[in-house]
This record gives sequence, structure tokens and C-alpha cells, in this order.
Amino acid sequence: MKTTILVHCPDQSGIISTVTGFIHRNHGNIVYLDQHVDKPADVFFMRIVIEFADTFSNLDHFKSLFQEELASPYTMEWSLHTDDKLPKMAIFVSKYNHCLYDLLSRYRSGELAVEIPFVLSNHTDLKHIADQFEIPFFHIPFNKQNRVEAEKEQLVLLEKYEIDFIVLARYMQIVSGNLISKFPNRIINIHHSFLPAFAGAKPYHAAFKRGVKIIGATSHYVTEELDEGPIIEQDVTTVTHSHSIEDFITKGRDLEKIVLSRGVKLHIARKTMVYNNKTVIFS
Amino acid sequence: MKTTILVHCPDQSGIISTVTGFIHRNHGNIVYLDQHVDKPADVFFMRIVIEFADTFSNLDHFKSLFQEELASPYTMEWSLHTDDKLPKMAIFVSKYNHCLYDLLSRYRSGELAVEIPFVLSNHTDLKHIADQFEIPFFHIPFNKQNRVEAEKEQLVLLEKYEIDFIVLARYMQIVSGNLISKFPNRIINIHHSFLPAFAGAKPYHAAFKRGVKIIGATSHYVTEELDEGPIIEQDVTTVTHSHSIEDFITKGRDLEKIVLSRGVKLHIARKTMVYNNKTVIFS
Amino acid sequence: MKTTILVHCPDQSGIISTVTGFIHRNHGNIVYLDQHVDKPADVFFMRIVIEFADTFSNLDHFKSLFQEELASPYTMEWSLHTDDKLPKMAIFVSKYNHCLYDLLSRYRSGELAVEIPFVLSNHTDLKHIADQFEIPFFHIPFNKQNRVEAEKEQLVLLEKYEIDFIVLARYMQIVSGNLISKFPNRIINIHHSFLPAFAGAKPYHAAFKRGVKIIGATSHYVTEELDEGPIIEQDVTTVTHSHSIEDFITKGRDLEKIVLSRGVKLHIARKTMVYNNKTVIFS
Amino acid sequence: MKTTILVHCPDQSGIISTVTGFIHRNHGNIVYLDQHVDKPADVFFMRIVIEFADTFSNLDHFKSLFQEELASPYTMEWSLHTDDKLPKMAIFVSKYNHCLYDLLSRYRSGELAVEIPFVLSNHTDLKHIADQFEIPFFHIPFNKQNRVEAEKEQLVLLEKYEIDFIVLARYMQIVSGNLISKFPNRIINIHHSFLPAFAGAKPYHAAFKRGVKIIGATSHYVTEELDEGPIIEQDVTTVTHSHSIEDFITKGRDLEKIVLSRGVKLHIARKTMVYNNKTVIFS
Repeated sequence: MKTTILVHCPDQSGIISTVTGFIHRNHGNIVYLDQHVDKPADVFFMRIVIEFADTFSNLDHFKSLFQEELASPYTMEWSLHTDDKLPKMAIFVSKYNHCLYDLLSRYRSGELAVEIPFVLSNHTDLKHIADQFEIPFFHIPFNKQNRVEAEKEQLVLLEKYEIDFIVLARYMQIVSGNLISKFPNRIINIHHSFLPAFAGAKPYHAAFKRGVKIIGATSHYVTEELDEGPIIEQDVTTVTHSHSIEDFITKGRDLEKIVLSRGVKLHIARKTMVYNNKTVIFS
Repeated sequence: MKTTILVHCPDQSGIISTVTGFIHRNHGNIVYLDQHVDKPADVFFMRIVIEFADTFSNLDHFKSLFQEELASPYTMEWSLHTDDKLPKMAIFVSKYNHCLYDLLSRYRSGELAVEIPFVLSNHTDLKHIADQFEIPFFHIPFNKQNRVEAEKEQLVLLEKYEIDFIVLARYMQIVSGNLISKFPNRIINIHHSFLPAFAGAKPYHAAFKRGVKIIGATSHYVTEELDEGPIIEQDVTTVTHSHSIEDFITKGRDLEKIVLSRGVKLHIARKTMVYNNKTVIFS
Repeated sequence: MKTTILVHCPDQSGIISTVTGFIHRNHGNIVYLDQHVDKPADVFFMRIVIEFADTFSNLDHFKSLFQEELASPYTMEWSLHTDDKLPKMAIFVSKYNHCLYDLLSRYRSGELAVEIPFVLSNHTDLKHIADQFEIPFFHIPFNKQNRVEAEKEQLVLLEKYEIDFIVLARYMQIVSGNLISKFPNRIINIHHSFLPAFAGAKPYHAAFKRGVKIIGATSHYVTEELDEGPIIEQDVTTVTHSHSIEDFITKGRDLEKIVLSRGVKLHIARKTMVYNNKTVIFS
Repeated sequence: MKTTILVHCPDQSGIISTVTGFIHRNHGNIVYLDQHVDKPADVFFMRIVIEFADTFSNLDHFKSLFQEELASPYTMEWSLHTDDKLPKMAIFVSKYNHCLYDLLSRYRSGELAVEIPFVLSNHTDLKHIADQFEIPFFHIPFNKQNRVEAEKEQLVLLEKYEIDFIVLARYMQIVSGNLISKFPNRIINIHHSFLPAFAGAKPYHAAFKRGVKIIGATSHYVTEELDEGPIIEQDVTTVTHSHSIEDFITKGRDLEKIVLSRGVKLHIARKTMVYNNKTVIFS
């Protein structure tokens, strides 16, 4: 069993040695350690991957010791993740299919270490893809009138299937603050521009109008401020005057699916931490 | 002598065949032709490079025929450029030296087919670099009080040295509408962000605060709207949470000098056309 | 109906004007023209896209005139393609599924203007994917003993379904000279390295051993010299010391599928020409 | 004073905690720690940056303790570097000037934390650039007859000026095994291709002939096998059929200077380690 610990706390001298000493004493072998200090904020971040020795027996005991000896004195925010249980990922979509095809293909290839209990959509256009990959599909229409009711239905599903995190794979509805608060830094969106350029609707049209020479895509955690959440991953591709808006959209699709899947994989691997609306991405 | 013709006009059937036929009849051999139709605007763009046969004699005659037989009937905007005279390029700088070093190194290496009659600055910090490369340096201080007067001095120099175009190589003053109107699409600026993201002052600080994973630079023609002019060239580089603002600035310097020099070279080679605040960049 | 003409011939003065004049006289409106001169070889290449006027009636007549008035006197190799009939593309695979998933997803999304009459494999591992996308799947085992017989079966299928071109989507068998000669510049392969680096087997292992900082993928036309055919498209991604061979393979998969699909789309759009074992790729 | 420690040794459990505990006990505050395990080779690598507390007094004592308590028992190869003395870097050039201009511009801008005691060349073509930047220039001609003698002169200079490492900034002579053995992993070369593609002479010509769509540059440590040394940094840029060999060379120059300077900066910052002819590059 591989165990990943994520920590952040006020920066102070001796943390690394204290934490690594603790793990060593408690029969853990550190197979990976990376740290970062956010100097302006004076905050220390660390990701450690441990393999426990045969002599190790009790994870709960380890966790309570960690809290007592390290987390409390150092005022740490921390989490511990073991790889013996796959996280559950829900996919929300609307009408564009490229990100859904890509995620489900990767899933079937064994590239994503998750379970996908369902795909949810406000339309039925992509049901055949979920069917084709044999993933349950739920259709919850969404409009101005039924907004509250529809979200209630979503929450029932998310709870029933014990969803750990949500991927918005070109889901064209705004997610409510209520839902976000239940999945803090656990809703990943793909925005089809190089944020903060061209936030909001129709970014390819805006990019075309501005005459940029590079377009991009951004995967980010969803916060209440639209397209303003912590950025996980970005990538770009070149365009020229000879590309039409349709060309932008076609080229962009490839970016979107790659950038979204990279973001999802970093999240699954517990390589992301969020602080001050920014991410620390461990390699 | 190589002759380059740039044309744009309302799109209509038969233009290419009419223009190429005209050139052929008038003893020109087309060694390069590229065209573009801006569909939304219904405008046709063409760049042609010609080598004239020995039997050709009179460029002025060719130009008046071109105007009469083609430009007038097709309502063309056009220009013709020969390579027997180097364009004159003025460089404006303030305190950052990397773009100036880069441009002057390229110039001395024979990479830029221009003359550089002078470097102009509102500070004296970079005088030693102009001296080192043996380029005349003019210091015209610029402040709120002397703005009008200073610009008058600039204009005198630009006129006296018959400057064709201006390169703002990290020149930290806003250029007036008056100066811009005298050099329409002939002032090239480097902005240290991936426009339209982070227009205005301190883009690296803004990029750092937003937590982007990619930073960029943009060379563009200067218009009255700050950082809103037609984009010539853009490039980007990746950054991570581990990079400080100082790292952004250092990495950005390499982008800035490369992106500015590419923009300058495209302009010198007459490979740029401007329409509707966008560029057509011929390859 | 949009008509694309591809031409190459010895370079000589006046070709562009002659060809464009011919098209104009014969009721064609040129909506796109790009040309290239291979200086060392002294060969002229041109791609023209035409929309014919309502007054145009007879394509066969146009073609015979083109041959007579242009192709014969200028010693042109040329081809003409109309978009009223979709080309037929066969996909050959073995055991890796990412390129197949990607191609079939694009196909179902309407991104590839082809018909896919069948997927062929020397294994049955990927049959379920063809099934899932409702594409006929043929299994033709391949080994040292049955090589000649197996290829005969392939040729029967290719002929029966009137296949225009073949995509080797990580097909792990060497294609025979006989098959190649029947599909000259019409078999597209994806090689999982930045050719000519790491030609041959196990390129990711070789790249890992060499300690490169960038890995790549290459789509190319298949010729008798293994991994030596004309390159259509290449792309790369960065790697570091911290990436294992498995990481190279995972990162490479994304490159492979993107680079292969770009190559396939350029081929479908008739934007590729081959000369001297190199490609001209029109934009 | 900032102190950097580089370590590699056989991988074993508890190293990180042992080393960090040692540093903490000896009044060091770890401001940066990164580690890597080369799994196939079973070797552990670590880079630590320390700031010592005011209570710390004796670096020599620290070093002998480190050797005794850590390096000996764990069979470590290690080195310790303080930033109170600038390393001395010699630049070797021949006739191409772009890398020299770039390095000296960066040096004068304060971007490179080194001293540059001299530029050495087998030609006099670039003397004016060294003069212009006020760096001593030594001309040591090199030919088949005087090879041994010339290298002896080089070694005299390298010793006299106490050179720490050498940068071959497009130096077109092969460096002898004798010189390499005196500067192991301390001679940095720039090769104008994406190694291992196009090793040896005239890589741009070879790339042009092969029809690649991407060209690159590689900075690497020099070993006795030509162009086979450990790669520090690589980058690439796209090319098309429309680029001539001259265009390749011009585009390549920008790559070369950027990739060389990145390699040099990584070396200066002690972010590189070499093992099994590969580099570990700490970020």
C-alpha cells in the first residue's frame, strides 16, 4: 500500500527534518518527497509518498500520532491518502463530445485510476456515448425554472454514488455555490481559452476577433467566481490569420481534451494543492 | 532586384489570374505568391515577390500601369517595395537592456536588413550599449511637464534621419496619438504578456498572482488603444508554482527578445499586412 | 462542389499566371492558391482550390483541356479531387488502443471526412472497440509462416472495399513492398519517436536510456525503408529525469494520437504532396 | 551565505530523514530539498539548499562531520557549494557570434553569476566582440600540426585563470580526452540539433534533407564520445517545406543561444547532477 501525505502550514525552520524523522521512526520509508515554500505568503507545502515496512500495523494510530506530534504543534492542514480504494469521479457533460470520448477511452484503457459511477447531462445528446462505454447516464434537464430542483437531483445522485470529485467535461451550465461548497477544490472544469484571456462565453470567437497568434485551454478547480478558480494545467497551440473560427474550434478540441485529462490525472494522483486561489502542482 | 507587392481589396472572382497575368505580360517572374481571403470581412489579401526579366526597364511605368489597370478597377490598397534600399529603423528604449542587446547583436551579425540611425531613450542607462555597438544615442527625458516638447524633439530626429519605422524595445513611455498617426502600423512594441491577458502595467506580477502555468510575450503594432494593436507574433513558456516573480521576469526576457525580433524581421521582410486591427502574416 | 488541384513540375517562369488564367477562362473561381518552389530540386508545386461558376458544366472536358493546354506543355504531374465523394480509409491496428479510440471518436464526431469500411488487425484485442463504434473488424493473424497468405487476404479486403488509403494506428507488423507499391504515399504510419531519432523498435526505451529532455512522435508515409518515409507531421513534449519509461509511454500516447490524426486530416484534405522523399504540406 | 549540497548514493531507507536531521542538529535551515531515485540503477539523488543560523560557525567542521556521519556510512558521492565566490567560466568560440553575443549580454546584465576571465578562439573573427564587452581574448590557432602544442597553451590559460568550467559556444574543434578528463562534467557544449538526431557535422543540412518538421538544439556535457554526452537541456522549433537551409540556420541560432544559456545557468546554480551518462536536473 502506497500512502500519500499532503501538508501545508506556516513556514518555519526544521519542518522537513521533523516530519521525515517522524515517518522514519514510525516504520515508513519515504519514496518521494517534494516541498515548496510560498515566500510571499510564508507558507510551507510538502508532498510525501511512503511505503510502510512490514513492521507497521496501524494506520489510524499513525494518523492520530501525526495529528498530535506534528499537525497540532505546527498548525498544519494535512490529508493522507492510500491507494487501496479508487476515488469515484462523476462526469458532467452537455453537447460537446470530444472530452467525454477522451476521458472514457482513457478510463477503458486503464489510464485513469478511478471509478466512474455515472455520466450526467442536461441534454440527451451524448447518452449514446455513455451507453457505448457502458457507463450509467443520467439526464437532468436544467433551465431557469427548474434550477433549484435540478441541482437537488444532482446532489442526490452525487451522494448516493459517494462521488469524490466531479469533472465538467464541457458542461455548459454554471455550477451553483451550494454544489461548489460541497466539493471544494473537487470540481475540475475545462475552459477553452488560455485564462485569464477570454474568460466567459465564446472564447474562440473572441480570440479570432482579437487576432491572437496562439490559442489555449485551461483546466482549473471551480470556484464561485466564474473562470477564476485555481489553474491546474494550461496548454496552447499556434494559429494564423488563415484559420477560421471553425479551425480554432477544431484545433481547440485537441487542446481541451489533453489539458482536461492532464488536470484530472494530477488530481487523481494527489499531486495538487490549493492555496490563495493558486495551485501547487507536484511533479 | 527583388520586388514585393502587397495588395488588399474587396474579394472578387478572377483577381489572382488578372494580377498574375499583368505581371507576366510586364516581364515579371513571380517567385512567391501567397493570398488570403478574410471571409467575414470579404477582403482579399495577396503578397507577391517578383524578379523582373532583363527586358524590364521602368519601375515607375510599371507602377502607373498597375494603378491604372488593377488598383483602380479593383479598388486596391497596395504598396510596392524594392530591396535596393535598406529601411531605416529607430530603436526606443528605457532601462531594460535585453531587447536592445539582442537587436544590436542581430544587426551586427547581418541578420537585420536595416539601417539603425539611432537609439533614443528617456534615460541614459543604456547609452553605454549603444556606444559599445557604435550606434548614435539620443537622450530625450520625458516627464509630465515636458511631454509635448519632448515629443517634438523626437519628431525632429525621426524626420531628420528619415526613419521608416520605430521599434519600442521595452520603452516605458506611452506613445502619443500624434506620433502614432505619423507612423501608422510602423511602430512595433513588445508587450511582456500573452495579450490580451495582462494588458497594462506589471504583467508578470499579475500573472504570478493569478497562478498561470504559462507566460508569454507579444509583439504588435502600436495603436492609440494601449496594448490593443494588431498582434504580429506571440510565444509562451511554461512556469510552475516554484517560480518566483523574479523567475517569471528572467524567463520572460528570453521570450521578449525572441518575439520582438521575429516581429521586426517579419516587418522588414514586408510579410505583414494590417486590416481591421488584425494582421495577415505571410510565411 | 469544391475542386482541389495539385500540381508539380519543373520550375519555369509564368506558370502561375498561365494556370490561373486557364482556370479563370474555364469558369473557375480560385478560392485558395498556395505554391512552393523547391529551389535545390528546381521543382514547382501548387495547390489550388476552385469553385466553379454556374456556367460550368463538364469536369471531364475541363480535365482533358487541363492535360492538353497545361500538363503536357509544362510536364506536370497533377491530380484533381472533388469533394462529392468521401475517400475510404482502412485502419490497421495491433494491440495498443489509444490511436484507434482517437480516430474512431473523431470519425463519429464528424471530424474526419472519410468512410471507414473496416478495422483490420493481426490480433483480436481491439475487436471490442471496433464493435463498440460499429465498424466491421477483420482479424488476419500474421506470423512468419503465413506472411504471404495473410497479405493476400489483406489485399482482397482492400480491393473489395475500394480502400483509398490505409492508416497504421500502431500496427506492429512491417508492411510489405508489394502492399506499399499498391498504395504509394497512401499508407500513413505513426512512429513513436521524433524521427530520425530512435527509428526502429522500442523508441521510448532508447530515449530513456539516452536521457533526452524531449520526446516526440512522427506521422509519415510508409516506404520500403523502415521509418524513413516522407514526414507529414511531428510534435514533441518535454520529459525530465523524474519520468520513468512508463511515463514516457503514457505521455507519448497523447502525442501519437494527436500527431497521427493531424497527418490523417492533412491527407484527407489533399494538403500533402510528396517529392524526393519529403512532403510539401499546404496550410 | 547560501549553501548547496549535492548527494548521490545507493538508495536505502531513511536517508532523507537522516540527512535532514543531521542538518537540523547542525544549525542549518533547509530552504529547498529535492530528491530523485533512479529506480533502474537504484541510486538516490538529493539537492539541498541550506541557510545556516547565526549560531553556526565552522563550515570545515560541518563538512568533516558530514563525511563522517553520513557520506562514509551511506557511501555517498557529495559536494558542497557556497555562494560567496563566483565560479570562473571560460568561453571557447570559433566564428559564429550569436552564442557569444548572447552570453556576454547576459553576463553584463548580471544574469550569470560567474566571472568570465577570458574568451578563447582558434580564430580572430570574434575578437572585436570580446573587446566590445571588455573581456580578455586569447587567440590560439588550431590545426592538425599544432594540436598538442595548442592544447598545452589552452591548459596553461585554464590553470592560470583558475577556470572552473568551460562553455563551448559554437567552438568548432573537437576537444581532446586529456582536456575533458581535467574538466569532467564541466565542459558544456551546444549542439545544433535535437540529439541523438543529426549528431556530427552539418545537422541543419541533414535535417533539411530528411524533411523534418521540427528542428532543435541540445546543450550537453562533453565526453569523449562526440555528441554523446549527458544532455542538460533541449528545445525545438517548427519548420516547414518552405524553409530553406539558410532559414533553418537562422531559426536555429535563436534556439542555440537560448538552450546554451539555460544549460549554463543550470550548471552555475548547481542544479545538475550526472550519473550513467544522464543528467538529473533539479528545478
